[in-house]
Amino acid sequence: MKATIDGKVTDIKAVWFDDGKVWMIDQRELPARIVIVWFDDYLEIAEAIRNMTTRGAPSIGATAAYAMCMAALKGCDLVKAAADIKAARPTANDLFYAVDYMTAELSAGRDPVEASDAYAQMMVDKCTKIGEYGAELIEDGMKLMTHCNAGALATVDMGTALAPMRVAQKQGKKFFVYASETRPRLQGMQLTAWELNQEGIDHAIIPDGASAYYMSKGVDMIITGADRITANGDFANKIGTFDKAIVAKHMGIPFYVAAPISTFDFSMESGEEIVIEQRSEEEVTMVGDIRIAPVGSKALNPAFDVTPAELVTGFITEVGILRPDEISKVRQ
Amino acid sequence: MKATIDGKVTDIKAVWFDDGKVWMIDQRELPARIVIVWFDDYLEIAEAIRNMTTRGAPSIGATAAYAMCMAALKGCDLVKAAADIKAARPTANDLFYAVDYMTAELSAGRDPVEASDAYAQMMVDKCTKIGEYGAELIEDGMKLMTHCNAGALATVDMGTALAPMRVAQKQGKKFFVYASETRPRLQGMQLTAWELNQEGIDHAIIPDGASAYYMSKGVDMIITGADRITANGDFANKIGTFDKAIVAKHMGIPFYVAAPISTFDFSMESGEEIVIEQRSEEEVTMVGDIRIAPVGSKALNPAFDVTPAELVTGFITEVGILRPDEISKVRQ
Repeated sequence: MKATIDGKVTDIKAVWFDDGKVWMIDQRELPARIVIVWFDDYLEIAEAIRNMTTRGAPSIGATAAYAMCMAALKGCDLVKAAADIKAARPTANDLFYAVDYMTAELSAGRDPVEASDAYAQMMVDKCTKIGEYGAELIEDGMKLMTHCNAGALATVDMGTALAPMRVAQKQGKKFFVYASETRPRLQGMQLTAWELNQEGIDHAIIPDGASAYYMSKGVDMIITGADRITANGDFANKIGTFDKAIVAKHMGIPFYVAAPISTFDFSMESGEEIVIEQRSEEEVTMVGDIRIAPVGSKALNPAFDVTPAELVTGFITEVGILRPDEISKVRQ
Repeated sequence: MKATIDGKVTDIKAVWFDDGKVWMIDQRELPARIVIVWFDDYLEIAEAIRNMTTRGAPSIGATAAYAMCMAALKGCDLVKAAADIKAARPTANDLFYAVDYMTAELSAGRDPVEASDAYAQMMVDKCTKIGEYGAELIEDGMKLMTHCNAGALATVDMGTALAPMRVAQKQGKKFFVYASETRPRLQGMQLTAWELNQEGIDHAIIPDGASAYYMSKGVDMIITGADRITANGDFANKIGTFDKAIVAKHMGIPFYVAAPISTFDFSMESGEEIVIEQRSEEEVTMVGDIRIAPVGSKALNPAFDVTPAELVTGFITEVGILRPDEISKVRQ
């Protein structure tokens, strides 16, 4: 992805391995500044997943792969490491997928760095394919809407929901993107708008509650990412996705979910089985150290919601665009 | 309304006239502290409407009535004053209704203070009736949802959407309220939750995007206020209302709008005629003096949206609960 560092446009990834360390953009510091941090202990890397230094299902997967790599390099107990890393966050399927991938690769004797680098590159390659398939849906003059950040920051590079926009931009298409801010953590405002800005894609930030207003004024397509997609096509994604999908259905606007096959969890029949992470109420009631809610009022902070398959027009994957009734084709 | 000031539970209104001045709660300071301000110049009062020192359609109406009162007491040109006051904000019908009411009363020779006090008291009386009718819909164990602040702060006292909750609470009913935070200005978090807390009504603040999530877990009824209701039953209310109404319809949850008849604007046939106030992007991109959005990204900030009548179960008014197809009954 493009990032302007010290006045220079640089090409950078969300997470990578170099010089015996795992490096990542501290996404909590964006958009005010670009801070790069490194870790050489798998527990610290698991903590970076938990505290959202890095976030987004595929980036979480790659980071988890690098955590397993680091555990292997340090000679740690890999069964314990796998359990510790899987405990970092509960919802993103990629976390579990990546840890299991590394467990298999390592037990087959593969070099840890090579295996985790291959995992991260595989994500980028998949996202590039997602971008190519998704860009076919984007036409000149379209208005798109997305939610949260399913961009390069979330996927090592390229993005899922933002990949079609990156590819369409390169193809010379002109379009406009509404990025809903995504309370409480504002990933839409702080990460998606930052990425779109770096890429020179025309966009505006809107409050989450302005989605129906702008959809009623004319939105051609909604594209979001997903954290987990179950066998029937239900999917978990950032809180607020479900509201948008219902509004889009009501207005007849196509709703696409961009995700690699690794986000599909065929061990779950439907979205009812997905565990939703409940995060701290301070994310809602505090800004920095200042409480903005009345003392005595509690807040609820589910990190994700589950959108039923019936609201999805199609899943944009690295093997093509699938209708919800077609996803059994990619069952592994 | 109840407000704990210096440790004492006090009964207070959102706006009132006393000692030659117009007094109001500075709602921008809530919930951190209760600040009472006064003005004795109608232009300052119009500015207090514009800058949202006071807000909420009926409170805006009462404040506008007091502004006209002050203009009359100071011997100002009442035609110019009416135009200045009407220019403060574009969407709330009560603003125009109140200024026209005062113009008529003053030209009929009525005492300015008496006329504006009567207007404010009339609002409270109407809200009390709204509370009584609306409370009949609330049953023990129900979960309700509201958006923005349509409470006592918004209506001099009692509230519109919150009036049924106040009355039901007095009747000893136990229920729970989800108050969506209402970005960008957070009136749901900072005003509605504050009022519910003062009244001892069980509640939780949720991000706006968590509406569908909680509705899918079981919400029995949604009650919001309205800023303007047109002849066909379309209504303008705080941005985010339209999203909730669509989600409620999708899930079969009753959606009620609580508003006095003064909020009905029969000069407009449908919501398409309503002018939507576009507020500054800094309300979205800044927290205090700190920019939270990327430099280079713009934000859009429509203050209201328009919900079509077909999504409304009923309008809770001071003359009873009306279906959208029944509102021509109250055409004045």
